Amino acid sequence: MPASLNASHLPATPFLAVDAAIVETNLAAMAHAAAAKGMDLRPHAKTHKVLELALRQIGLGAVGLTVATLGEAEVFAVAGVTDIFLAFPVWADEGKGARLQALAENVKLTVGIDSVEGARQLAAATAGAPIGVLVEVDSGHHRSGAAAANAGSLARAAADAGLDVRGVFTFPGHGYGPGNQGSAAQDEAQALAAAVQSLAAAGLEAAVVSGGSTPTAAVADAGILTEMRPGVYLFNDAQQVEMGTCGWGDVALWAVATVVSRHGQHIILDSGSKTLGADWPAWTTGGGRLPDHRDARITALSEHHATVEFPENTVLPTPGELIRVVPNHVCAAVNLADELSVMVDGAVADTWRVAARGRNS
Amino acid sequence: MPASLNASHLPATPFLAVDAAIVETNLAAMAHAAAAKGMDLRPHAKTHKVLELALRQIGLGAVGLTVATLGEAEVFAVAGVTDIFLAFPVWADEGKGARLQALAENVKLTVGIDSVEGARQLAAATAGAPIGVLVEVDSGHHRSGAAAANAGSLARAAADAGLDVRGVFTFPGHGYGPGNQGSAAQDEAQALAAAVQSLAAAGLEAAVVSGGSTPTAAVADAGILTEMRPGVYLFNDAQQVEMGTCGWGDVALWAVATVVSRHGQHIILDSGSKTLGADWPAWTTGGGRLPDHRDARITALSEHHATVEFPENTVLPTPGELIRVVPNHVCAAVNLADELSVMVDGAVADTWRVAARGRNS
Repeated sequence: MPASLNASHLPATPFLAVDAAIVETNLAAMAHAAAAKGMDLRPHAKTHKVLELALRQIGLGAVGLTVATLGEAEVFAVAGVTDIFLAFPVWADEGKGARLQALAENVKLTVGIDSVEGARQLAAATAGAPIGVLVEVDSGHHRSGAAAANAGSLARAAADAGLDVRGVFTFPGHGYGPGNQGSAAQDEAQALAAAVQSLAAAGLEAAVVSGGSTPTAAVADAGILTEMRPGVYLFNDAQQVEMGTCGWGDVALWAVATVVSRHGQHIILDSGSKTLGADWPAWTTGGGRLPDHRDARITALSEHHATVEFPENTVLPTPGELIRVVPNHVCAAVNLADELSVMVDGAVADTWRVAARGRNS
Repeated sequence: MPASLNASHLPATPFLAVDAAIVETNLAAMAHAAAAKGMDLRPHAKTHKVLELALRQIGLGAVGLTVATLGEAEVFAVAGVTDIFLAFPVWADEGKGARLQALAENVKLTVGIDSVEGARQLAAATAGAPIGVLVEVDSGHHRSGAAAANAGSLARAAADAGLDVRGVFTFPGHGYGPGNQGSAAQDEAQALAAAVQSLAAAGLEAAVVSGGSTPTAAVADAGILTEMRPGVYLFNDAQQVEMGTCGWGDVALWAVATVVSRHGQHIILDSGSKTLGADWPAWTTGGGRLPDHRDARITALSEHHATVEFPENTVLPTPGELIRVVPNHVCAAVNLADELSVMVDGAVADTWRVAARGRNS
C-alpha cells in the first residue's frame, strides 16, 4: 500500500483514505461474531457517518443502527434505514420533540433515557408517537446512565408517562485502555443483569439488553446481552491497536500526510489535530501512529503539524514523502472530514461523503 | 445574556454562539494595540474561517491575513483579501505548486519555508510566480522552524533558488500556559533578532519580522518585530481566561448546550468533544469552562457528553436548562461547526458561515 502511494493520483494532503477491502473484512467479521454469539448487531454509525457503510452494515445482517444525535438519525432515515436507536438521553424540547415525532413516522425509533425528568419530557413532547425507550444504566464509565438498581423505578416512571419501555442499555466506556476489556465486559453484564431484574421487580420486561463497544465486543456476555453496539470496528484506529483489540492489518483508515520538513531526529507532517483529531488518552504512546514506521512516535500535534520522533540510528523519511498516519480515535478524525477517499491498489477508486458530519444537534 | 437565552428562538443545541459586540470590541482593541506599538497586524484567520470577520479585520487596518493552509488562502482570496501569508512550510508538490501560482496571480502571497529542500521545491514548483517567502525560525516551541543561526544560510539558498525572501517569522507557541507569556515573548524577540542578523550576514534584508500570538501580543517586542499574527483574540477561549490574557467579559464565543441529566453533584451537557474540540492541556482546569457557573468544572468529555462537576452545597442547573460553555481552544471548536449563530439580546440576529472549515489541504 504505502509503496504504491503516488502523489500525482491522489488528493492534496492531508486527506483521509480508506481501504475498502479491509472495511469489508471488518464488517463481515463483526457480523459473524455477533451471529455466532446469538446476539443482535446494531453498529454505532457515529464512527463513519457514511450512507454507503450504513447500508452495507444492514445488508450484512445488522438489525438497525445506533446513532448519537437526532441529526444523525435524520440523515440515515432519509437514506432508508428503518430501525434506529438514538443512544443518548435526548432532552426533548419543543423543536426536538417535533423532529422525533416526524422521524418516528418512518422509522422504528428507540431513544435512551437516564432520568425521570428526561423521560417525562420525552413523553410530553412526543405524545402519541410510536417511540420506544431503553433505560441507560451506568456500568462503570460514570458518565450518563442511572444506577442499575434504579432502572426499574425509572422505567416505571417512563411507562406511566406513556413511553414504550423496550429494555436497557449501557456503554462500557471504561473498557478503553490496555487490559481493561475483560473487567469492563463483566461490569457491563452485571449492571445490565441487575437492571433487567430491577425492571422485572417493577413489572416491566426488558426485551432488549444492549451493550458493547469495539474493545469489549469479543468478550461481551451473550448470556445477558441480546445486542451489541460497536462502532469503531469497521475502521479501527491507533487506540484499538495499542489496546490489542485489533492488529495493524485490521486498520482500514488513515490520513495521508506529507513530510514537510525534517530537523534532527524528528519530522513534521502536515496532518495535525484538525485532520487527526486531538484525542490523546494518557495510556496511548502518542498522538496517532505511523503503520509503516512503527518505532516512530507522534510527540506533539498542532492544528496543522504532527511532530514525529524517530529513534536514533533510524533512516528518517525525506521531505516530500507521503506517510500514512492512523489517528488515535477514528470517530474524531472522520468527523473532521467532508469525504473519505476509497483506495484500491494505491489509487482513489471512489469517494464516500461523510454525510452526517457536523449533525451534532 | 444567559438569563435571556430562550430555547424557542434558538437553534437546536449544541450550537456555537457569538456575541458580535464583544467580537467588535476585541477586533478594535487588537488593531489599536498593534497601531500603538507601531506594528503591522496580520491576524490568523484559521481561528474564525469566516469571510465577514476577515474583511472586518482588514477594514480595521490589518495589513493582510495569516492562514495555515493553501485551501484557507484560496477561500479568503475569492472573498477579496489581497495580501495573505501562508504561515506553514508548505511542500509544493505538483498540485500545490500550480495552486500557489494561480493564487499569486490575484494575491500578494507570502509562504513560510523552514528547510532548504522545501524552499527549492517551492521555487521549482512555482517558477516565475511572484511568491515571497519568510524564513521560519524556532523560538522555543520546537515544532517547525530552523535554528535562528541557520536562517541566513536557508534564506540564501532560497534566494539562490529564485525565491523573493521578504523576512523571518516565528510562532512562540510555548507562551501557552500560565505565566509563560513574558519569557516566550523574550525568546521570540531574541530568535527573530538573531535571524535578522543571520540574514544580514548572508547579504539579505528582513523587511518583515513577524511573530506574535494572542497570549504574547501584549508583550511582543516592538523594537524587533514589525508584525504580529494573533488569531484567537477576536473570540478568546477558556485557555486565554485561565492564562489571564483576557477576562470573562472578553469571551465572545461559546457553545450553547442543554442539561440532559443530573446525577448527584454532576450534570451531563449535550456539548461533547465533537462540539467543543478535545484540546485539554494539562495546565487547564477542565475540558472548557462555564462562564455562568465558574466554580463548576468539566471533568470529562465524550463525543456528545460533557460531564460537569459542581462543588458540594451548590445549586445545580436543572435538566432542560440551557448552559453556555466556553471551549478550551476556540480554533478547534469553530473548525467543527458549519456556522456560527450571531447573538444580539439573547436571540440569533445573523449567521456566519465557517467558510474555510475543512480546508486542511
